[in-house]
Amino acid sequence: MTPVADEIRVRRGHESASYDPDLIRKIIDAGYFAHIAFQHRGQPVCIPMMVWREEDFVYWHGSTKSRAMLAGAGEEVCITITHWDGLVFARSAFHHSANYRCVMLFGTAESVPEANKLAHLHTLMERIAPGRDDDLRPMTAQEIKGTALLRIPIDRVSAKVKSGPPRGDPADADWPVWEGVVPVAQTFQPAVSAALTEADRETPENIARLEGVSI
Amino acid sequence: MTPVADEIRVRRGHESASYDPDLIRKIIDAGYFAHIAFQHRGQPVCIPMMVWREEDFVYWHGSTKSRAMLAGAGEEVCITITHWDGLVFARSAFHHSANYRCVMLFGTAESVPEANKLAHLHTLMERIAPGRDDDLRPMTAQEIKGTALLRIPIDRVSAKVKSGPPRGDPADADWPVWEGVVPVAQTFQPAVSAALTEADRETPENIARLEGVSI
Repeated sequence: MTPVADEIRVRRGHESASYDPDLIRKIIDAGYFAHIAFQHRGQPVCIPMMVWREEDFVYWHGSTKSRAMLAGAGEEVCITITHWDGLVFARSAFHHSANYRCVMLFGTAESVPEANKLAHLHTLMERIAPGRDDDLRPMTAQEIKGTALLRIPIDRVSAKVKSGPPRGDPADADWPVWEGVVPVAQTFQPAVSAALTEADRETPENIARLEGVSI
Repeated sequence: MTPVADEIRVRRGHESASYDPDLIRKIIDAGYFAHIAFQHRGQPVCIPMMVWREEDFVYWHGSTKSRAMLAGAGEEVCITITHWDGLVFARSAFHHSANYRCVMLFGTAESVPEANKLAHLHTLMERIAPGRDDDLRPMTAQEIKGTALLRIPIDRVSAKVKSGPPRGDPADADWPVWEGVVPVAQTFQPAVSAALTEADRETPENIARLEGVSI
């Protein structure tokens, strides 16, 4: 992996920037959602989307008609995956901050060939609900065609992690105000069935297992 | 508020795009975090940051040395605030999706004059922990100078909300697989004190009140 250019990566708090491939993979794999930024007709655009990792690539998909797919193959993108872990309260306003885990990926979007689409979409479904894909109504040729699938290599990338208690100015140590962290957790809740048919009556294990899992 | 250009806003699932000012403010005010996208030396960059709203402006701040402040006054930005509300499971892979509330703001970053910085930073602190700012060690002139404060008007903006059960193809209605939603909640956890001084012993009410609050 190539560290991102100096002018892009953190200029302050540099100690927390990391290019450790294991850490980078762990932060990507911890979540499901990202924001993708690209330039569109001279305007920066930032769109939320679902992403997943396979080996050293990050994939995303969407309807060929959706705005998330406005940045097509050959376009420069920045994909940022952020997990907010808490608000950090110091004894001075200046040292307040947030705890988080973040990966920023830079690259040129590549199209995945039509013939490989189904296999990658299967991997996404397996990640979310193992075994579910085999139970679903199979995708039609039309649906596969209508699904754009893009990827970038995990190559120009950096991670940044901020965790733990506030790191304030030692001169403020005795200022008489509470100092600490309020953690933030993003957690899957109990499944809500559509309850339209017999099949909806019991939540299958590959869905129920998500309950209580934190991202 | 001016709707964003057709080519930027949703091209599919258009029914869920909204320009309702109340909805837009509600989505912005529900959270603390956003992603900001801008073009930097020919490269799209997408950076997580804390934002807040005052009247019809969205504000963000950071160290003048931080990468979040690489996009300075006069630069075009896109600020996207997304709350992920769930994974949506349909009877076909194609109709799987996510529930979310999202606001995309486009605009040119404006610097807030030095003389007004403290008042806006006070508003941010009041939002997070009412009354806390009065208890903190006051900001020094140096700290105020080292804090960049930017804003964009809430003007070129759209909201998109997806909620509720899966909306699959009626032809799949009887396919024998579970259909429903796994909600995702982002919630403040019990405060963790730094426990360094007497002042840290008891969590003040303006911090403790966050516990259990969902974004």
